[in-house]
Amino acid sequence: MLAPWRSPLSSAIHRNRSKPYSRYFQLATVTTEGYPANRTVVFRGFLNNEQNSLKIITDTRSAKIQDIEHQAIAEVCWYFTKTREQFRISGNLQLITAAQTDDNLQLARQTTWHNLSAAARAQFAWPNPGKPAADQAEFDILPPDADTPLDNFCLLLLTPKKIDHLQLRGDPQQRCLYILESDRTWSVQPVNP
Amino acid sequence: MLAPWRSPLSSAIHRNRSKPYSRYFQLATVTTEGYPANRTVVFRGFLNNEQNSLKIITDTRSAKIQDIEHQAIAEVCWYFTKTREQFRISGNLQLITAAQTDDNLQLARQTTWHNLSAAARAQFAWPNPGKPAADQAEFDILPPDADTPLDNFCLLLLTPKKIDHLQLRGDPQQRCLYILESDRTWSVQPVNP
Repeated sequence: MLAPWRSPLSSAIHRNRSKPYSRYFQLATVTTEGYPANRTVVFRGFLNNEQNSLKIITDTRSAKIQDIEHQAIAEVCWYFTKTREQFRISGNLQLITAAQTDDNLQLARQTTWHNLSAAARAQFAWPNPGKPAADQAEFDILPPDADTPLDNFCLLLLTPKKIDHLQLRGDPQQRCLYILESDRTWSVQPVNP
Repeated sequence: MLAPWRSPLSSAIHRNRSKPYSRYFQLATVTTEGYPANRTVVFRGFLNNEQNSLKIITDTRSAKIQDIEHQAIAEVCWYFTKTREQFRISGNLQLITAAQTDDNLQLARQTTWHNLSAAARAQFAWPNPGKPAADQAEFDILPPDADTPLDNFCLLLLTPKKIDHLQLRGDPQQRCLYILESDRTWSVQPVNP
């Protein structure tokens, strides 16, 4: 069943759809040293469209993999510039790698790869991210096949446990907390902005 | 002396200046439980314009205060939509409260308050943020005096130690790391995107 925060989030995605960057959000994790890390990633839709997990992609060579293997918890901050609203989404992360044995999750990984643009797929064949800059020639490669994800391609799922929705429009601003309770239902609490 | 990352950052701020939201960025901290927290805040300029510390404001009643008192380290993710570039800025945080005894820092706090819009100042007189929603009437208040910061108003300084600048435009993308070395100089290293 769709969580109660899905409707306002879908509405925000829809009303901001003219801006391609409205599908970007900032993913915060904690490093193995206990420090915050924060980077922009792209929203790739919901798992199977009808589950509440958000899809992200990442590369096994990316620094965030160590953060996630150490502590699979994140908070996403998703600000929509046109409608001036923010969703803070915290929850658990799950990495779906080439080694994933659950058929449905492996299929989701393959489908997500298939739906990428050729340019996005090509990045997974680029030289090692974060290492001293390689020659330009090493980036001039043909995009990998759409039907066969490269081994370093990961699907990353964020399964929310708490959502903090703030709307800056309105006088006063509106803010609402959605919390996943121990009985798996969602509580909804309007709070002060 | 201005750090070498100041020039590309100033250029990004300038070239994106038509978008008011280009002065918003996402501030990640770690909670007392060790979990990531992430929220949008507003860039309020550099300390005295010529130091490398970024100015942010916050409310002593905000949840992020506990994070900062526990561990005064943050990573900012600042994505510029028009020029398609990201600055990840990690460093130390310093809270400048009403109790701050350093005259220059207290003056910076007062000047920052003075430069706020009346609407921004009024938020510091609103009911307690994050608590169950108060009556509308409690938000209908006159803005506080511009010359006297409310006690709950804090200036928050981020003093960078590492900057990761990614430019998505260009083929391939460009990425550069700026790191504050132990001799207080900045190293500059182009790396793979």
